[in-house]
Amino acid sequence: MAKMKLYYSPSSPYARKVRVLAMETGLDKKIEMVNVALTPVAPNADVDKHNPIGKIPALSVKGMDLFDSPVICEYLDSQHKGRKLFPRKGRSRWLALRQQAMGDGLLDAALLARYEGALRPEEKRWSEWSQGQIKKMNGVLDQLEAEAKSLKGKLTIGTISVACALGYLDLRFADMGWRDKRPKLAKWFAQTSKLPSIKATVPPAA
Amino acid sequence: MAKMKLYYSPSSPYARKVRVLAMETGLDKKIEMVNVALTPVAPNADVDKHNPIGKIPALSVKGMDLFDSPVICEYLDSQHKGRKLFPRKGRSRWLALRQQAMGDGLLDAALLARYEGALRPEEKRWSEWSQGQIKKMNGVLDQLEAEAKSLKGKLTIGTISVACALGYLDLRFADMGWRDKRPKLAKWFAQTSKLPSIKATVPPAA
Repeated sequence: MAKMKLYYSPSSPYARKVRVLAMETGLDKKIEMVNVALTPVAPNADVDKHNPIGKIPALSVKGMDLFDSPVICEYLDSQHKGRKLFPRKGRSRWLALRQQAMGDGLLDAALLARYEGALRPEEKRWSEWSQGQIKKMNGVLDQLEAEAKSLKGKLTIGTISVACALGYLDLRFADMGWRDKRPKLAKWFAQTSKLPSIKATVPPAA
Repeated sequence: MAKMKLYYSPSSPYARKVRVLAMETGLDKKIEMVNVALTPVAPNADVDKHNPIGKIPALSVKGMDLFDSPVICEYLDSQHKGRKLFPRKGRSRWLALRQQAMGDGLLDAALLARYEGALRPEEKRWSEWSQGQIKKMNGVLDQLEAEAKSLKGKLTIGTISVACALGYLDLRFADMGWRDKRPKLAKWFAQTSKLPSIKATVPPAA
């Protein structure tokens, strides 16, 4: 396998998915990490070269640039011989991909709420927009609480995504109190947070 | 296979991906279509029940609700015996998933630019945000022009995604002139637009 380069930032929750999966599969030693800074209004020329959408994570493999995080994660999962984090088929695959979609969907809403409340000039903020995104975040959190049982067991791309999303809430939305009234999800996350790959990738406090 | 319900709107480009794939695989007859209206600030309670993120498309199958469009499309592709639109493995799979990520990434940026310019109250619009999204859109379009050769051949989830994204630009960003200086992409789209599944799902003019 050619040497791979991962464009990431230590605080990006989508890039964290890739870093966790790489550690879980032993691929982390084969990936050169390139730490970059960017926002939707301050792009990074180096990232743009490898991902025309200008987002991280982007993975450069010989002759091919891959994005976004679900594609990079599935590609990496095809490059090792150990236990697969993308179940190959059947109900377990749809369960994991659905969980990934919930984690990523929670993040998409959280990032938009964050940009609205921290990046955008104050006089241009629209509270209905933020409220709409926070409603989505709470919708996913409630659903995850209702399905907490399905999160148990060894890590998959689904549970990695959920853990990275919850970690981002602790970084940027600590005031939200997402654990309140969601004891099962909180308990699962507390246990999952002890895993070495999750511990090693906790985003640095701002 | 249990009867399936697809929550969609005729103008949603992400839902169009699912509708095209369903027609290409003969699954369209097995799917009940539920036409819904929603925006990020005006959610739809029926959709929320099937997708906690409150977006379309959402697919309800017996005992399971699936989202987002990549997950629904891959699930449907597993439910028929014909030619697969998700190549199973190897380079052709990564190529198709990367194209899907480009199409979806182009759409994500286009939708955010659209919400900024049409949904948000005028005095709260932020031109740097719109410009940032339009830069992403142009980045993807330029990359697709550079890779236009790889779009040729029978439809895959990759080229379906690109076609649905370009169709959305014609609906909402006609003034952008995306075909200018991108003759190969324009030619590919003109040819692809003649396919029955693409023709049958053209979004209605606003």
